[in-house]
Amino acid sequence: MPELRKDPIIGRWVIISTDRAKRPTDFLRESVEIKGKGFCPFCYGNEEKTPPEILAYGRNGGPPNTPGWHVRVVPNKFPALGIEGELDRQGEGLFDRMNGVGAHEVIVETPEHKCTLATLPEKGIEDVLWAYRDRMLDLKNDKRFRYILIFKNHGEAAGASLEHTHSQLIALPIVPKRVREEVDSSKRYYQEKERCIFCDMIRQEVESEVRVVNENDHFIALAPYAPRFPFEMWLLPKQHGSAFENTQSPIYASLARILKDNLLRLDAVLDRPAYNFMIHTSPIGEESNEHYHWHLEIMPKLTKVAGFEWGTGFYICPTPPEESARFLREAKLTLTKP
Amino acid sequence: MPELRKDPIIGRWVIISTDRAKRPTDFLRESVEIKGKGFCPFCYGNEEKTPPEILAYGRNGGPPNTPGWHVRVVPNKFPALGIEGELDRQGEGLFDRMNGVGAHEVIVETPEHKCTLATLPEKGIEDVLWAYRDRMLDLKNDKRFRYILIFKNHGEAAGASLEHTHSQLIALPIVPKRVREEVDSSKRYYQEKERCIFCDMIRQEVESEVRVVNENDHFIALAPYAPRFPFEMWLLPKQHGSAFENTQSPIYASLARILKDNLLRLDAVLDRPAYNFMIHTSPIGEESNEHYHWHLEIMPKLTKVAGFEWGTGFYICPTPPEESARFLREAKLTLTKP
Repeated sequence: MPELRKDPIIGRWVIISTDRAKRPTDFLRESVEIKGKGFCPFCYGNEEKTPPEILAYGRNGGPPNTPGWHVRVVPNKFPALGIEGELDRQGEGLFDRMNGVGAHEVIVETPEHKCTLATLPEKGIEDVLWAYRDRMLDLKNDKRFRYILIFKNHGEAAGASLEHTHSQLIALPIVPKRVREEVDSSKRYYQEKERCIFCDMIRQEVESEVRVVNENDHFIALAPYAPRFPFEMWLLPKQHGSAFENTQSPIYASLARILKDNLLRLDAVLDRPAYNFMIHTSPIGEESNEHYHWHLEIMPKLTKVAGFEWGTGFYICPTPPEESARFLREAKLTLTKP
Repeated sequence: MPELRKDPIIGRWVIISTDRAKRPTDFLRESVEIKGKGFCPFCYGNEEKTPPEILAYGRNGGPPNTPGWHVRVVPNKFPALGIEGELDRQGEGLFDRMNGVGAHEVIVETPEHKCTLATLPEKGIEDVLWAYRDRMLDLKNDKRFRYILIFKNHGEAAGASLEHTHSQLIALPIVPKRVREEVDSSKRYYQEKERCIFCDMIRQEVESEVRVVNENDHFIALAPYAPRFPFEMWLLPKQHGSAFENTQSPIYASLARILKDNLLRLDAVLDRPAYNFMIHTSPIGEESNEHYHWHLEIMPKLTKVAGFEWGTGFYICPTPPEESARFLREAKLTLTKP
C-alpha cells in the first residue's frame, strides 16, 4: 500500500510508492558527460566573450576580463530581467504587473572545463559559496530588490545550456511564491510554539536516523519526509540560522565539504545524474529571525512527469526517502578525485 | 524590458520575456508521432490484458472486456494509490501520513490506435467527457475521497508511457495543494466583492480581446495573463459553474467542440507537441458555490527547465500570452480530419 505524506513546512501532500519502490538503476536516463567540444565562453582566454566581469577571485593583479581567475561572476548574456530602470508598478483591471527589473548573473565555478562542482577541490567549492555570498551582500544594497535566488542547473536535462560548470543568481523585486510559503508557514509555527520548525525537524530526524544521509560539524544532509522527487536531498545548518549570506565564516567551509560529499554520492548512486539545486534563504529585510532556517535543496532530474505536477501541485515520488537515504549513505565514493 | 506579472487567482508572479519573445518555431522538440508498433493493451482484442473494465460505452450487448466499445475505463494496472482499506491517519512527531487509499483509473478514449484526442470526431470527444463525469459521480459516493483529478499526458515528453490515446483519473483522500490554493483565493475574493474572480477575469479578457483565442456558445479559450509556460491555455465556461461534473448536458458537447478546436490549433501552430491537460473542479463536499469556476488547463510541453521552477515556484515564460493567443487564433486548421 502506498503512503500519503504531508510536508510539515508547507503542508503539501505527496504520494510515496512503497510496493514497487524504484531503485537507482530503475531510472533510465543519460549520465551528464562533459564533451568539451566547440567554443566555450567560460574558458580562459575567452573572457571578452562574456559581458564585463562583476567579480573575480584568484587573479593576482593583471587587468579584469583576462585569465588567472578561479571563480568569475559575469552578467548573464541573455538575462531574464533588466538591471536598468525604476520599478514601475501598474494595474490593468484585475491584473498587476511591473517592469522586469532585476539582476541575472552567472557564477563560473572554475576555469577547468572538464570539472564538475562535485569534482572541484573543497577549497574551490568554498570559493564558489563565498562568491554567492559576496554577490548577495552587494545586490542587497539595491533597494529595488526583495529576494536573491541562487540556483544551479547541472546537465542539459536539468536546463543547463552551457556545459562548463556554473551557477546562477537572480535578484528579484518580489519574493518567489515557494519561498514566501515556507517563510510564512515557519512563522506561524514559531508564533504558536516559539520554536523553529526546521530545528524541530532536524532533532526528530537525528533521533530516528532513517532519513539522515550524513552530517559534519555544522551541517546535516537529509532525504526529506515528504519529497516531491526521488533522491531529493536537503542540506541544513544544524544550528539555527535564518540567512545564508549572514553566516559565520567557518560555515562556508563546512557547507563546501558536505555539498561535495553529497554531490559525489549522487554521482556514485545515480551514475552522474543531471540535477538542480537552490538556496532558500530569508527575504531581504527579514534576514534576522527565529522562525526561518536557510538551507540548500538538491533535486536530481530522474523522472519525466512534468506538466501534471506543475498544474496540480500533486506529486508521486517513486522512491521512499528512507530508501534513497540508505542508498546515498551506503554509496561507495570511488569518484573522489579532487 | 521583460515584464513581471501576477496571476490574479493565486498571486504567483512570473517573468514574461518580451524582447526576444520565442515564436513557435523557436522551440526545438520532437512532434508526437504514433508509431503503432508492438503490443497495445488498449486495442480491440486485448481487453483481457487490462484489469477488468469499470465502464464501457458503445458495446451493444456482448460480454464485458470484449471488443465493440468506443470509450473504455479500466483500473490503472500500476496504480499510484490502492483502492482497498480504510483511511488510517497517523502522526509521527512532526509528520503526518495516511495510507495511500485512492482510485487510479485509465480512460481509453478510442479503440483507434492511430487517433489522438484532437483527431477524434467531436462526438467521440464528448463521450470521453461523459466518461470523466460518470466516473467522478460514481467515485464521489465513496466517503473516503476528497478530490477527483482528471488529467491527460499526451506524448512521451509529457509523461505518457503508452501511446494509445488515454486520460487518467485519480481519486484522492486529500485536495491537491494547487487546487486548494485556487479555491481558497477565489473564496477570499468572493467574500470581499461578492463576485467570482474567474467571471471578472473572463469579462475583462473579452473586452481587451488580446488574450482570447476563441469562443463558442458556452466556452472561452484564453491564454492566461500570467502563464507559467509558453502557449499555456485555459478553457472556461462563460457562465459561472463550480463543478465540471454537475454541469448541464449541452455543456459537454460544447466543451468537446472547443477542446477539439484548440488541440488542433496547438497541433498546427506547434507541430503536434506533447502536452498535459487537467480539469480543475471544486473539491468534494464544496461543489455548489459562487466563488470557484471550474476550467480545463492545457500546457504544451515545450521547454526543458524543470527542477528550478519546481523548487522555487518561480517561472520564466519565454512567450507573452498575447503572442501565443495571436498565433493560436490565426492557426490554419489544415489538420482537421475527423
